Amino acid sequence: MKHTDTIIALATGAAPAAIAVLRISGAEAVAQTQKLWRGKILKEQLSHTMHVGWLYDADNEPLDEVVVGIFKGPKSFTKEDVVEISCHGSPFVVQKIIRAFLKNGLRYAEAGEFTKRAFLNGRFDLAQAEAVADVIASETEAAHKAALYQMKGGFSQVIAQLRQDLIHFASLIELELDFGEEDVEFANRADLKASVNRILAVLRTLVKSFALGNVIKNGVTTVIAGKPNAGKSTLLNTLLNEEKAIVSEIAGTTRDTIEDTLIIEGLLFRFVDTAGLRQTDDAIEKIGVARSYEKIKAAELVIYLFDLSQIQTPADYEQELHAAQAFGIPFLMVGNKVEHCNDFVYSTLASLPDHLLISAKQQDGIEVLKTTLLEKVQSQNFKINDTLLTNVRHYESLVHTSVALERVLNGLEQGITGDFLAMDIRHALQALGSITGEISSDDLLANIFSKFCIGK
Amino acid sequence: MKHTDTIIALATGAAPAAIAVLRISGAEAVAQTQKLWRGKILKEQLSHTMHVGWLYDADNEPLDEVVVGIFKGPKSFTKEDVVEISCHGSPFVVQKIIRAFLKNGLRYAEAGEFTKRAFLNGRFDLAQAEAVADVIASETEAAHKAALYQMKGGFSQVIAQLRQDLIHFASLIELELDFGEEDVEFANRADLKASVNRILAVLRTLVKSFALGNVIKNGVTTVIAGKPNAGKSTLLNTLLNEEKAIVSEIAGTTRDTIEDTLIIEGLLFRFVDTAGLRQTDDAIEKIGVARSYEKIKAAELVIYLFDLSQIQTPADYEQELHAAQAFGIPFLMVGNKVEHCNDFVYSTLASLPDHLLISAKQQDGIEVLKTTLLEKVQSQNFKINDTLLTNVRHYESLVHTSVALERVLNGLEQGITGDFLAMDIRHALQALGSITGEISSDDLLANIFSKFCIGK
Repeated sequence: MKHTDTIIALATGAAPAAIAVLRISGAEAVAQTQKLWRGKILKEQLSHTMHVGWLYDADNEPLDEVVVGIFKGPKSFTKEDVVEISCHGSPFVVQKIIRAFLKNGLRYAEAGEFTKRAFLNGRFDLAQAEAVADVIASETEAAHKAALYQMKGGFSQVIAQLRQDLIHFASLIELELDFGEEDVEFANRADLKASVNRILAVLRTLVKSFALGNVIKNGVTTVIAGKPNAGKSTLLNTLLNEEKAIVSEIAGTTRDTIEDTLIIEGLLFRFVDTAGLRQTDDAIEKIGVARSYEKIKAAELVIYLFDLSQIQTPADYEQELHAAQAFGIPFLMVGNKVEHCNDFVYSTLASLPDHLLISAKQQDGIEVLKTTLLEKVQSQNFKINDTLLTNVRHYESLVHTSVALERVLNGLEQGITGDFLAMDIRHALQALGSITGEISSDDLLANIFSKFCIGK
Repeated sequence: MKHTDTIIALATGAAPAAIAVLRISGAEAVAQTQKLWRGKILKEQLSHTMHVGWLYDADNEPLDEVVVGIFKGPKSFTKEDVVEISCHGSPFVVQKIIRAFLKNGLRYAEAGEFTKRAFLNGRFDLAQAEAVADVIASETEAAHKAALYQMKGGFSQVIAQLRQDLIHFASLIELELDFGEEDVEFANRADLKASVNRILAVLRTLVKSFALGNVIKNGVTTVIAGKPNAGKSTLLNTLLNEEKAIVSEIAGTTRDTIEDTLIIEGLLFRFVDTAGLRQTDDAIEKIGVARSYEKIKAAELVIYLFDLSQIQTPADYEQELHAAQAFGIPFLMVGNKVEHCNDFVYSTLASLPDHLLISAKQQDGIEVLKTTLLEKVQSQNFKINDTLLTNVRHYESLVHTSVALERVLNGLEQGITGDFLAMDIRHALQALGSITGEISSDDLLANIFSKFCIGK
């Protein structure tokens, strides 16, 4: 799977900008740069040094004045020879330089190819490589922190420890198989069971952490629903106004018409406003509404807002409750306009779990609502500081590992023979090894790195 | 005007991308980076070296794994100490790192502030500094070439030579003033006249070159006009289809609804389609139409397209001609559908200057049209390889210089005294010196560099 050709790509954001950086990796990186270069002889320069000079094309036309940085393999990101060229951040100049290199035989890099080479050359394991993309994509404190932890290898160590425990267990079983004819049991079955149970307990904790890890990485999609005039827009504005400045500072935050985001203590909430979900005869609008329903189906939470001043009878309240339940998603019942609520309704509803009474207009109860939103998402067992599963591929691998180990546990209890146990253990080891890339395939790698940006 | 504080800015394009580069310049650049840095001791490192390490914020939270490049002044772009930090290209990470530096007392750089410092510290003259922005903004071969020539100091040398000639001339006059009481003429008046005429000839050539230099830098706005069904859209498509691929490869090419661009031999033509200019009652559309007329008023050229099959009488043709003239801009009369043209009309029109007979549909005469467009723009006296004036500020300064020298010439002819001559010469020298920045003011510099991008 080793690459041998030399690749080039633009590594920085869309020009125009002050500068743009082109990254070149491969055995020919320095020699190919030299071909276009007028300045010091590059191959004679030390690794980790920078040099100012000019690039010229094959027709002796000046391309640009640039700074060339040299990283000699294996002391580089890809462990190959790497050259980084800082040129003026003009789209035209960038294109011209790239074309000059392509003309001389370099290949334009595929998405994630630099990181893929770094992985294949042993710079880091697969989970760490995936974290590079997560660091780039992180939009919040919590997502950034989880990604950095994974990139530094914290998560990989947890997996490595599990794998080591499992290999130890497997070696005992395999030893028995070697002596299979003699019908000996080297491994005490009670010890084995205890060992599998220990591993399974860790796996279950990790798998369970994915619920939080996933929302940390991707945000919590939260539907704001309720009858017209319940105060949905007022609530959204009240929630957003305080925090909007912070959100706006972060470039690239996507917002479509029915979506707005709010960061509560480092966790990203994506609010889907159901005000857009009215009945309509307009064909285009229908498509929009259908898409919104798709989004709502994938949401984690509903804030169901109802107007307390309109609650006169138990039936009034129950109608609202049924509307909230109809979404089929965990929900908070939030009574609005608490200042117009009669005492009997107040005392009945205030004590119910997952019920909040607020005033969006008077900004009453908003802090409690935020805290409650956070609590609904963060299960009591997890804090953001713990090892969290944030990657769906890792989640699936750990579920596979768990399933295989559950079979081992059953097998032990039913006293099945060592060779059947060994088969399930091998499955478990394989699933676990795929996370950090001890076991990988071209397809798997292609799939992972195709989601990276070009130049990384 | 020297700056003493240390500044930071994002120098690369909008994240997310593989990497982002932050640039820091000033006396505190290395020491301030060290505060957040975990890695080698930066001040002990050589200039032009790169170092891999981690940045941590004041709360000991990891910010990112980065590469830090060190340029020690005066061997840097700004001639101050410069640190360039390559971090992961996440908007969130970039913000976090910048905030950590700002918290420690760095200032976010103003637009063009790095280049301004480079100019003030004598790295290059003002015309070269301005060329840095032109290189970044260049969209075509010709614009890029002119900008590089200016950045390398080619244009500055021409100005320097003119200035030297003028200073020599001035020194002769000033010498006379020193001996003013004695009524001596050190400088032969005929020689002086010849000298001013030589300088004026160069100035006139440069001023004249601005017509081409300006369109090279900014493109040629070309109106495509004509009656409905004359074939305007077919012509535009025929013109664009061949070249569109090349244009599309260059990111950032702006196109509004009524505009499309085409590069003919390295020169950018911006076509304004007057199909959008119909009479309308719609308020919004009216604003759009008004804007289009604004654009047309600033256009350089009209392609007036008329349907040859509809020309039956001289009056038919004259009506079309008047419509073309009504734009008040240089125009080409382009008869379309030549395959349906009667012989008499053909023989009458084919011989007229600035008339072309084509078939947009059958792609007949398109190459001639392109060549003619180029010729209309490139006056016969100029080639792209000559020194071209591309900057409107330089153009104005050279016009001022010329005016002052014309006064000197008149003065010489009318035999006015040396002190009046000296005053006009000083004006000329001042105007000339403002181009390369020998003479500059805070206002002028603020105006020039405010048009730069942040981080440059």
